Amino acid sequence: MSDITEIIKSRFSANSYNTQRKLSDQEISDLIELATHAPSAFNLQNWKFVAVRSEEAKERLLPLAYGQQKVVDSAVTFIVCGTLKPHETLPAALKPTLDVGIINDAIYTGWLNAAQNMYENNPAFQRDEAIRSGSLAAMTLMLAAKGRGLVSAPMIGFDQSAVAEAFNLAPTDVPVMLVTVGYPGTENWPKKPRKPVKDVLEFV
Amino acid sequence: MSDITEIIKSRFSANSYNTQRKLSDQEISDLIELATHAPSAFNLQNWKFVAVRSEEAKERLLPLAYGQQKVVDSAVTFIVCGTLKPHETLPAALKPTLDVGIINDAIYTGWLNAAQNMYENNPAFQRDEAIRSGSLAAMTLMLAAKGRGLVSAPMIGFDQSAVAEAFNLAPTDVPVMLVTVGYPGTENWPKKPRKPVKDVLEFV
Repeated sequence: MSDITEIIKSRFSANSYNTQRKLSDQEISDLIELATHAPSAFNLQNWKFVAVRSEEAKERLLPLAYGQQKVVDSAVTFIVCGTLKPHETLPAALKPTLDVGIINDAIYTGWLNAAQNMYENNPAFQRDEAIRSGSLAAMTLMLAAKGRGLVSAPMIGFDQSAVAEAFNLAPTDVPVMLVTVGYPGTENWPKKPRKPVKDVLEFV
Repeated sequence: MSDITEIIKSRFSANSYNTQRKLSDQEISDLIELATHAPSAFNLQNWKFVAVRSEEAKERLLPLAYGQQKVVDSAVTFIVCGTLKPHETLPAALKPTLDVGIINDAIYTGWLNAAQNMYENNPAFQRDEAIRSGSLAAMTLMLAAKGRGLVSAPMIGFDQSAVAEAFNLAPTDVPVMLVTVGYPGTENWPKKPRKPVKDVLEFV
């Protein structure tokens, strides 16, 4: 299956995984490569992914995710992080865009200055941006996974500070969500119904 | 084009739009219907979309988005909102999932209680959740648009409180980002390069 509309409509949050089918590190890396095609402000790319796929690491994560079995049963659980202080990493992140000539020196410098002004003294906006960028990448990851016959589930039920400590996250890494990915098991719920569009959309 | 991998790889943030080609309200509604297939914690669906598509509304938004011309040139700019106090709207949002038998009474009640405990006295976590859900929906929207031959651009450069006031957002509506959507113009930049995967992915 690869049709985007069909993938969006058929994706569901999986609780049941095939515990026998793993993903290779290359397959995991390919999924993240696709996830990083997500947009971010100024092309900040203020994200980081920890692929929890060894038995030892899964067991380490399990209690911090309140015992949710899919952490163990899925092939991999990604700790999707957004990163703080994005203005400090932007010069390096944006340099290739300058080098290939998509933007010129004036735009490069202008964006660096704009980002400095927006983020430097605004930790709340830094956190918003970390969650925004991490979530955009996570959604891309889940749809990419579906396109490869995999299922996924985003999880916010975990101890953020304990995960940060147990997996040696940097002080600037904000764990935005966990995303389990793997081949489906046999006991998944159907997709949950959504509100009618008219309840969430206003035209002006 | 509908292949998910190709769509993810070829989507870019558009600055240039075909000002002659509009979208019907039905086409706009169809895009939002797809966006709401995004996941949210507990199936909260804590999102709301304002489709800014009339000339009057575009002109109202333009200065609040610091004069970014794509607000006027694109067919529609969505004000993508996440909503606060999601535990208060969850009973109604989750009821159809109970009614069709996907979850039972015990799970329904359990999720309502869990959400109450997680969000009620934690406004920071409510804001995180609003940004998370809004961003997941926005990413789905942008990929759905690409699948229909449209281009899009997420924007965080706008005056959040002025937009909230000018478009009569509720106090619980957090404008997460603006997303312009339309048919492409002739002067778009190519997609900006991304960091190598090895720089953002760690295996454990």
